Amino acid sequence: MVSRVIPVEDFDLVIFGATGDLARRKILPGLYRRFVSGQMPDGAQIIGAARTDQDDAAFQAETRAAIIEFGKVTEGDADLDRFLKHLHYVAIDAKGEGGWKELKSKMREGVVHAFYFSVAPSLFGDIAERLAKHDIADDDSRIVVEKPFGRDLESARALNKVLSQHFDEQQIYRIDHYLGKETVQNLMAVRFANILFEPLWNAQYIDHVQITVAETVGVGGRGSYYDNSGAIRDMVQNHMMQLLCLIAMEPPYHFDPDAVRDEKLKVIRALEPVAPTEIVRGQYQANGEPGYLEDAENPQSRTESYIAMKVRVSNWRWQGTPFYLRTGKKLRARTSEIAITFKEPPHSIFEDAGAAGEPKANELIIRLQPNEGMDLKVMIKEPGPGGMRLVQVPLDMTFADALGPDAADVTDAYERLIMDVIRGNQTLFMRGDEVEAAWAWTDPIIQAWDEGKARPEPYDPGSSGPDEALGLMHRDGRRWREIRS
Amino acid sequence: MVSRVIPVEDFDLVIFGATGDLARRKILPGLYRRFVSGQMPDGAQIIGAARTDQDDAAFQAETRAAIIEFGKVTEGDADLDRFLKHLHYVAIDAKGEGGWKELKSKMREGVVHAFYFSVAPSLFGDIAERLAKHDIADDDSRIVVEKPFGRDLESARALNKVLSQHFDEQQIYRIDHYLGKETVQNLMAVRFANILFEPLWNAQYIDHVQITVAETVGVGGRGSYYDNSGAIRDMVQNHMMQLLCLIAMEPPYHFDPDAVRDEKLKVIRALEPVAPTEIVRGQYQANGEPGYLEDAENPQSRTESYIAMKVRVSNWRWQGTPFYLRTGKKLRARTSEIAITFKEPPHSIFEDAGAAGEPKANELIIRLQPNEGMDLKVMIKEPGPGGMRLVQVPLDMTFADALGPDAADVTDAYERLIMDVIRGNQTLFMRGDEVEAAWAWTDPIIQAWDEGKARPEPYDPGSSGPDEALGLMHRDGRRWREIRS
Repeated sequence: MVSRVIPVEDFDLVIFGATGDLARRKILPGLYRRFVSGQMPDGAQIIGAARTDQDDAAFQAETRAAIIEFGKVTEGDADLDRFLKHLHYVAIDAKGEGGWKELKSKMREGVVHAFYFSVAPSLFGDIAERLAKHDIADDDSRIVVEKPFGRDLESARALNKVLSQHFDEQQIYRIDHYLGKETVQNLMAVRFANILFEPLWNAQYIDHVQITVAETVGVGGRGSYYDNSGAIRDMVQNHMMQLLCLIAMEPPYHFDPDAVRDEKLKVIRALEPVAPTEIVRGQYQANGEPGYLEDAENPQSRTESYIAMKVRVSNWRWQGTPFYLRTGKKLRARTSEIAITFKEPPHSIFEDAGAAGEPKANELIIRLQPNEGMDLKVMIKEPGPGGMRLVQVPLDMTFADALGPDAADVTDAYERLIMDVIRGNQTLFMRGDEVEAAWAWTDPIIQAWDEGKARPEPYDPGSSGPDEALGLMHRDGRRWREIRS
Repeated sequence: MVSRVIPVEDFDLVIFGATGDLARRKILPGLYRRFVSGQMPDGAQIIGAARTDQDDAAFQAETRAAIIEFGKVTEGDADLDRFLKHLHYVAIDAKGEGGWKELKSKMREGVVHAFYFSVAPSLFGDIAERLAKHDIADDDSRIVVEKPFGRDLESARALNKVLSQHFDEQQIYRIDHYLGKETVQNLMAVRFANILFEPLWNAQYIDHVQITVAETVGVGGRGSYYDNSGAIRDMVQNHMMQLLCLIAMEPPYHFDPDAVRDEKLKVIRALEPVAPTEIVRGQYQANGEPGYLEDAENPQSRTESYIAMKVRVSNWRWQGTPFYLRTGKKLRARTSEIAITFKEPPHSIFEDAGAAGEPKANELIIRLQPNEGMDLKVMIKEPGPGGMRLVQVPLDMTFADALGPDAADVTDAYERLIMDVIRGNQTLFMRGDEVEAAWAWTDPIIQAWDEGKARPEPYDPGSSGPDEALGLMHRDGRRWREIRS
């Protein structure tokens, strides 16, 4: 069983920052895969735009190299030449006038126009203004913007304001690639297309939720960016907040952008302020390799490379069910997952009944990386004649294997989301008020740190983070899942 | 992961009717498999008892042939000779005195004593009396009896009374091999060792339940027995009633014999009388091969070889959720299954939302034969970049494959139940009051037929039964699952 691929409409996609890292690693290889799958139509045009002065041929050659390097494509791939014919290039001056008329001349009438702002946020205003001034974008155009979307409520508001001067909210696609993951979307199908889960999806039946995003890398060359950001801005305010919303939200009345985003917004607004005692910040220390303080620009930096926190959603559904979030760099393994731990059955009929094995709490594990997938852990009778022996087994709710090799080849989040932009589907993109609400919740936390001047707890590279984070769970009689890939 | 096999205690098992069909097809090959698996201890003694005058060697030779024929064992099997050494034989006169002293002399002290009454019910009293009189059975002995356990309430009571003159209820093991099936026991683990199912296990979430026992064979050589029985006595009153009880029962407070059987009894007592309009009886007609009237002794027979009925359990849990039962001979395929159809989600958020595929109701399918197993049908997102496409897939709740080839080799129900007898575990055996309550519900149905003198509806061999049975579901806006193996 393989998903049918329906080509999207003809489009002109302009990528600002087309020579940058994100374009080379994700956007262009992703578009190539959509082309190979047949989802990109013959009438698609991709226009690279950046400061570098080069011609179409040079951009095509550069893109060829990027696709081979990051798209795991071999040099002789037959589709590659055909794909590259769709590519053009315009050298452009984001803060000046150079190149805009040429860009205008390349845009076609009657096709979808999308502009991917793969540039620093400080350029958003300049580009938006020039797209309007040169009559390149109109009311039907779509713009795609990347994180970081602000560094606090004030700066996020300013960014939203700049964009809203030239574009309606319906035209703005704020990408969070976590929302483009296959499994995140499957989570919505599982929750809302089955009667089996929604009645149990509340504090009466769910003990707690753990959201983990663990990385093995340090901040490495990104030290100067990261040191002004930290784990809370880099991961919690955006990616982890979005995942939390999808787990916690009420059923939207309809699977459409505003219905879904209204429900997510309600969750963010229902988040209780987090007490300082329910947050643990960490910083990896030197251990053979450089510690965070060597990687960062500021040798006194108090920026956290790890954070664990206990979050409460203050509404009827979740009263009494905490959400534990943790994320960090230089941890034991690279893994992102959401684990929903159900309560134990209220009474075990099997205890002392000649049955072997205790019933354990059911769990739903949503793996985002590596090996995207979803497992429901259930108790069954161990097959065989040995009487009633209980054993917990994982039920595969993903079916990648069952649905064939093409299904197992999970589409990258970026390419999926870019196709959504072309289709005009905003459901998996953040709305401006969501981003602002998330900052409104994060700001006081960051402010308290800045005022408190406490140092993050040190932790060893390759560990699971600082010991204090374990205590955060142990206090509640719970424990973190092991970090492993 | 393979179930550990723990040997049972040493035992003397006496099989009355050891030369009969059931012993040769099921009991002896089953014991052999338990021997091979290591579950039968070295101190086990099996004593065949029947009218035939033969010695141990002859019985062993006969058993060897039976195991090879029905146990799928090859002649040279190394374990066979070792197993046969455990076998002895006593020629016995159930209604006289011959052989009882010899039997007594073979029984050992200090081991479990079990007596398998694999004989006509009319002999139960004679055998029970002689076991007592010759001091062969005592208060710790166990007896195993087979269906038919009566043909109505009155005869069942009489049988219970005969047995109770010599044995306590705790000593009596009334076998229903459907309860020995792996999947039936797994059903209890799934229901009661997980918090995921019990909250949904009621009329609010379950639309209806279908229990199907379909056979491809006709009554063949059993015409004279069957014609006095019919589908309701042969299948509904015992096997299907037991399955219905396990689905419908409240959680027992403990997984022990009386706690479980108390709950089953409550279900049987809560069954509403069935209106004649909610029962369809059928009789297969000639079609190239003989019809039922040729197979039966009475060419005017009104006995049903097929029955379909709508059954209501009158209690808080099941008000509004009907149980549909059907069973018949000469049907399209040989299959036994329980299908639990959940209600559809109350609201589809995906409709008209660019999502392809409608949410379908979740189903839990419990297959008893062939291919014992359990599937939970859930909706997921079809993997791939094609937007939100919903697809229904079966989740394997059996794990035979996942747990290895030994687990997939499902133990036969008989051997499992015989081991339960030796272990003294009555949980999977019917208690006398259950049997009587089932007859009390069945008797008025049969009585109404006898008075009404209506003929069963004819149906074609190889079909799904009479068309009238389809109507039974269609009236309610539902449909039977397809009969297929």
